[in-house]
Amino acid sequence: MVATMMNAQLSLNHIIERAGTLFADREIVSQMPDKSVRRHTYADLLRRSRSLANALIDAGLQTGDRVATLMWNHHAHLEAYHGVPMAGGVYHTLNLRLAPNDIAYIVNHAKDRFLIVDDVLLKLYAAFAKDVSFEKVFVVSLTDAPVDGPFVSYESLMADVPAGWAPPPVDENQGAGMCYTSGTTGKPKGVIYSHRAVALHSMGSAMTDTLAISQHDCVLPMVPMFHANAWGLPFTCAMVGAKQVHPGPHLDPVSLLDLYEREKVTISAGVPTVWIGIQQTVSQNPGKWTLQPDMRMVVGGSAAPEAMIRDMDKLGMRVIHAWGMTETTPLGSVANVKQSLIDKGEDAQYAARAKQGIPVPFVEIRAVGEDGPVAHDGQAMGELQVRGPWVAASYFDFPEANDRWTDDGWFRTGDVVTIDPDGYIKITDRTKDLIKSGGEWISSVDLENALMGHQDIAEAAVIAYHHDKWVERPLAVVVPKEGRTVDAGALSDFLISQGIAKWWLPDGFVVKDAIPRTSTGKFLKAKLRDELSDWTPESSGS
Amino acid sequence: MVATMMNAQLSLNHIIERAGTLFADREIVSQMPDKSVRRHTYADLLRRSRSLANALIDAGLQTGDRVATLMWNHHAHLEAYHGVPMAGGVYHTLNLRLAPNDIAYIVNHAKDRFLIVDDVLLKLYAAFAKDVSFEKVFVVSLTDAPVDGPFVSYESLMADVPAGWAPPPVDENQGAGMCYTSGTTGKPKGVIYSHRAVALHSMGSAMTDTLAISQHDCVLPMVPMFHANAWGLPFTCAMVGAKQVHPGPHLDPVSLLDLYEREKVTISAGVPTVWIGIQQTVSQNPGKWTLQPDMRMVVGGSAAPEAMIRDMDKLGMRVIHAWGMTETTPLGSVANVKQSLIDKGEDAQYAARAKQGIPVPFVEIRAVGEDGPVAHDGQAMGELQVRGPWVAASYFDFPEANDRWTDDGWFRTGDVVTIDPDGYIKITDRTKDLIKSGGEWISSVDLENALMGHQDIAEAAVIAYHHDKWVERPLAVVVPKEGRTVDAGALSDFLISQGIAKWWLPDGFVVKDAIPRTSTGKFLKAKLRDELSDWTPESSGS
Repeated sequence: MVATMMNAQLSLNHIIERAGTLFADREIVSQMPDKSVRRHTYADLLRRSRSLANALIDAGLQTGDRVATLMWNHHAHLEAYHGVPMAGGVYHTLNLRLAPNDIAYIVNHAKDRFLIVDDVLLKLYAAFAKDVSFEKVFVVSLTDAPVDGPFVSYESLMADVPAGWAPPPVDENQGAGMCYTSGTTGKPKGVIYSHRAVALHSMGSAMTDTLAISQHDCVLPMVPMFHANAWGLPFTCAMVGAKQVHPGPHLDPVSLLDLYEREKVTISAGVPTVWIGIQQTVSQNPGKWTLQPDMRMVVGGSAAPEAMIRDMDKLGMRVIHAWGMTETTPLGSVANVKQSLIDKGEDAQYAARAKQGIPVPFVEIRAVGEDGPVAHDGQAMGELQVRGPWVAASYFDFPEANDRWTDDGWFRTGDVVTIDPDGYIKITDRTKDLIKSGGEWISSVDLENALMGHQDIAEAAVIAYHHDKWVERPLAVVVPKEGRTVDAGALSDFLISQGIAKWWLPDGFVVKDAIPRTSTGKFLKAKLRDELSDWTPESSGS
Repeated sequence: MVATMMNAQLSLNHIIERAGTLFADREIVSQMPDKSVRRHTYADLLRRSRSLANALIDAGLQTGDRVATLMWNHHAHLEAYHGVPMAGGVYHTLNLRLAPNDIAYIVNHAKDRFLIVDDVLLKLYAAFAKDVSFEKVFVVSLTDAPVDGPFVSYESLMADVPAGWAPPPVDENQGAGMCYTSGTTGKPKGVIYSHRAVALHSMGSAMTDTLAISQHDCVLPMVPMFHANAWGLPFTCAMVGAKQVHPGPHLDPVSLLDLYEREKVTISAGVPTVWIGIQQTVSQNPGKWTLQPDMRMVVGGSAAPEAMIRDMDKLGMRVIHAWGMTETTPLGSVANVKQSLIDKGEDAQYAARAKQGIPVPFVEIRAVGEDGPVAHDGQAMGELQVRGPWVAASYFDFPEANDRWTDDGWFRTGDVVTIDPDGYIKITDRTKDLIKSGGEWISSVDLENALMGHQDIAEAAVIAYHHDKWVERPLAVVVPKEGRTVDAGALSDFLISQGIAKWWLPDGFVVKDAIPRTSTGKFLKAKLRDELSDWTPESSGS
């Protein structure tokens, strides 16, 4: 029996209409390349998104057409988030940190028809323009320089829509946004987010036990809008009416801290490497910035070490550890303290907060080992597999990667995890980074987190090197803090003091000035493995 | 272009599976008729709901079949909420406060196949049993008396399911629950809630800016589970893992306060009349009960007077005013303090909290007057119309009432409201209770709330009486507090001091011992109008 409820579609149009009317005066602050700020409101965002939608339809946009964006985080990028889906189109965020030829590949694979680009990124566009063929390129002038040449001024699209104009109707399964994974291996692969997925994800993110985002919050996503919708924060903020602050191109700690203080930011979000920079900057300049009490720092993208979470707490910045992927819109799990841990003391709570958390409602998880799903005992490792209404079912036009989904319909994340009896997921590795030593698994991530808890270590990455007897053995690459030195014996002793099993100890510690990183700030272990492919205990002298 | 996301159905099965595994040990406390309590956990609830589902399928339940419940609020009623939909069926909550012949009408109209009934309600069942024909009647023994006669013991259904048993797959638009409106006029009309509607409603209720229900909460719904799913609280609690406390048949203030204290309740929910009783009991027994700090009281069903909200705050009980209907699953709006009111002072905030609030995300509202939608100026009155994924599109098998929906697909609530510039809805009347005096509208609810702010008035209802010149004029019916008397002139002066316009003043004040009420505790104004149909200013001597 079909229920008697309305067939109301979960549309992103509702989110922006709600924001523009119920929270008309709430601010959206955008930092420009010259560090000036532009101030808009949700009423402006609604009005300008409608103008953009209307202009795109006038320019010939058909339902499902992709509109690429090559932009920093600011008001115009937000307008594309709302205005392109409102027109029936799919905004496609290009990662401006990729090599130009990779961007061209992605544009061509996605068949993007139009581009919206910051004027300060036209040089980057020029580097791949010859390899792509946008029908029109709309330029957002962040510097107030006039737009000319073959380009159309984005601002010229902002004419008010005719009276009575309404966006075309939306089917909730229709594409709204698109993002390519910036994985460390293989071709980039695209995911198309539906209106439904983003709407549900926004509801999931606003719950008290997930990110608890409220209209009273002021949210600064450091995570770029070209990374999995800036973790969906712009949509969640619009849905609840939270103030938004967008940093533009200035992502250094001092610029961010200045914005936190001036705009009274209550929540910020980014990868651990950015947080480590902020933590160091605050520690080195005590009292320089007055932050909001109980400011929340959402950390994702890579695992945040427990030591960092403790240090941030001491500085008045509460870390909320979350896990997600481009393929999961992205929020999959959040590490808040469960009720069952309330009476178990600080150490148990920190240990839980350093894990990737429990799944958000409507996201299902399992960890699958070689013999099927493993026990939730905090010990058994398996590949994390997820299922849910905001999880991708395939990549766009990329059947070669269909093995990322199981026959029974779960997405294979490529993360190796344990799940403890309280349900907390802990990533122990990427499937490809796991070290298989004598048939047993060693977690590179556990070793890295332990090493990064050492007072003299700034960064650490652990990879497998080929070993004749054990097949693989761990090798650590460490970056000492400025002015510090490290010693292999002392580090091994330290690891043992941290509860690392003796047979997990790295066979060597290679000192470097920096760990190579992907465009999203993750360790690029493939490069380390290449560089150290000839490493042997003998060659190192250790 | 269809997005690449999973077609994961929003199923209530996910909610109970999540609760039973992630929050396995969290408690569900049920008070029995003898005031003893039974303690279960979410693991029990999952296990027993699965047993019920399996037993119902064994008993011949087909997808979409209705299973009636005639029960107080307790663990077994919860099991029906989860177990019946898990079997593919539709739980149908019968209102035990209705007259037996009304219950029989509803059972027959809904074509209920099975009944689950409390042993303490068998007498009520006997009063309509001859008019209905359930295939099987399952009796829940709350008194531990044996179940015999033609009845099946509910507990006998609780055998563990066979290994490998799994519930049948769910389409999210499938019916899960059913409830008949207990309106003051016309035949009862039924709404069938879909899995999707209840799932989305749960997400909407758990958001920080709505009811903010968290796994750390302990929730006691005073609102019966036969009223619009106890406002959806059992599902929201299960989704987030909140502790639940169910009072059984004991809904008097002292019994409730005892439970609040003993079980450390953080949120309770009910209609204003119950709250008024609690407020009076606490005031008369200062220090007798120690409640949780910042305990939240969700008030709905009727408007809560501002004076009551202020008084409850002083007693440490924070009122959260909400609005909804059986037809809206039910949560439609919540009156939290908006960010835009933060700097506007206490009076503005109380005024906002005494309104019905702003719509929950994904619920759309409009107020429609005689010339179409009215301005959001806090002055213009119109009928509240709503639309959204948890709003009914029709009644079950009742085409005569299709005029409750507009041609463009909005549900006509029958509430007359204003909407202020901040977006707060304020109910000024039911369409049928509005007083049309000389072509202008007078709000009976405004007059009632103002009167109930008077120190000597316990309750007040205002109705229209026929007036030869003005067509209708207001007449107040007042119940003085114990030992107090009231005087028409003083009441009129008081109303003017409260900002009531002179031409709104009631033409008379009739003193009564009590206001007649519906089974859900709302004023039964139709009865007052009947009783006072001959009233004239002359007849009253006023």
